[in-house]
Amino acid sequence: MALEFDGSAFHGWQQQDNAVSVQASLQEALAEIEGKPVSTVAAGRTDSGVHAEALLVHADVSAERWQRSHLAYIHGVNSKLPDTVRVVGVRAVNSDFHARFDCRERAYRYQIWNRNTPSAIYRWRHWWMPRPLDVDAMCEAALCCLGTHDFSTLRASGCQAAHAIRTISRINVKRSDGVITIEVAADAFLYHMVRNLVGNLVDVGLGRQSPEGFARLLDQKDRSKAAATAPAHGLYFVDAVYDGFSSRELIGNS
Amino acid sequence: MALEFDGSAFHGWQQQDNAVSVQASLQEALAEIEGKPVSTVAAGRTDSGVHAEALLVHADVSAERWQRSHLAYIHGVNSKLPDTVRVVGVRAVNSDFHARFDCRERAYRYQIWNRNTPSAIYRWRHWWMPRPLDVDAMCEAALCCLGTHDFSTLRASGCQAAHAIRTISRINVKRSDGVITIEVAADAFLYHMVRNLVGNLVDVGLGRQSPEGFARLLDQKDRSKAAATAPAHGLYFVDAVYDGFSSRELIGNS
Repeated sequence: MALEFDGSAFHGWQQQDNAVSVQASLQEALAEIEGKPVSTVAAGRTDSGVHAEALLVHADVSAERWQRSHLAYIHGVNSKLPDTVRVVGVRAVNSDFHARFDCRERAYRYQIWNRNTPSAIYRWRHWWMPRPLDVDAMCEAALCCLGTHDFSTLRASGCQAAHAIRTISRINVKRSDGVITIEVAADAFLYHMVRNLVGNLVDVGLGRQSPEGFARLLDQKDRSKAAATAPAHGLYFVDAVYDGFSSRELIGNS
Repeated sequence: MALEFDGSAFHGWQQQDNAVSVQASLQEALAEIEGKPVSTVAAGRTDSGVHAEALLVHADVSAERWQRSHLAYIHGVNSKLPDTVRVVGVRAVNSDFHARFDCRERAYRYQIWNRNTPSAIYRWRHWWMPRPLDVDAMCEAALCCLGTHDFSTLRASGCQAAHAIRTISRINVKRSDGVITIEVAADAFLYHMVRNLVGNLVDVGLGRQSPEGFARLLDQKDRSKAAATAPAHGLYFVDAVYDGFSSRELIGNS
């Protein structure tokens, strides 16, 4: 299923003790519909505060309602969920499908509110950055990330990945009115990698760092020299790509 | 000043007993900065739940901070406001300026979430309409409203205006992905006029009413025959036009 959620209502995707998680909310709703415990696996974890427009999650379900109509099943699950999380599309997959291990590419979007006053309506949807950012310089720096690199510079200290080599297949920075949007897709991301990337691009946009200086930082593979991590509430998980479909394509197609 | 607010946090613009209003919140913040009571006048009232991106509000202010820097004044007022309302731009006007009486044109936007599942992230930002809407038919019906007409058909029963003749100078309906946006500008609007208009356009989009049938409804000047009122939470006050400037133009320009 493709899952949309408002990250400001949750302590991230992953189920944990003493904190409200998207996974626990979803599993409770599925259990009510299925009449038995249901476990779920997502394409990736999300940090506390991070949003999702289409996180791909797999689960084994069999309720009569699923057999009858996928859309009726979605409405049934949604009726058991808080209004801060919604199933927005589903499809049947093979029984050996795995949301995390079969995922070939993940895509995120980061939104910056680049006006001299913050927003009331979009207050938990963007990072407010009052000083004007140089988008051309940010684009130039972003392009240094394209391709396969060791991204140790952008890796948070708690990261448990075996190595830091990742392939960024797409990245762009653009401005529309007072909103700057950064889109990035890769085979996988390290812990806090997108938020660290955004923090560094904003440093470039502010003129604190040149695009060339950012390229050198990447080469140095040393997190301690990089900029601060951008806040979670500007980040959106937007797509997970698999053989034959992507989570975003499932929206509205049930 | 141009004011942005999240309507879901307020019982509308106007100050009233026993309900949280935008006006009361703003006047409290201004009084703290000015050190004395401050009254405010808006370009128009908004219903409970209706949002504003740039409502124009006038007030008499004189604090030292205003003289020094308009942006510093904005930040001062914003620091006293709840995060659901923000001053997003200001300018000085003549002492006889009046936000309501001098306003030559008001503009609203209405947003419809036209997908088969509701949104988690944008849940108080759109009207969810799961059945597909025929945007071409809605456009055709909308064009019947252009110009000067008696809009009694779209007037709510509590409306206190002396007559129902208004001039719509601009109206359009468009789809982008699963979101339908209706934009409309007029010299002034009757009570619930935009929400009643949207309710009727949606009736046309659903095929319950033809564009020609809607035109006849307008001619009949009879509210009792019209469609239901669209919910408040899809509606945004987006601009108020005056001689020499508009509220939207003030955003980010202080």
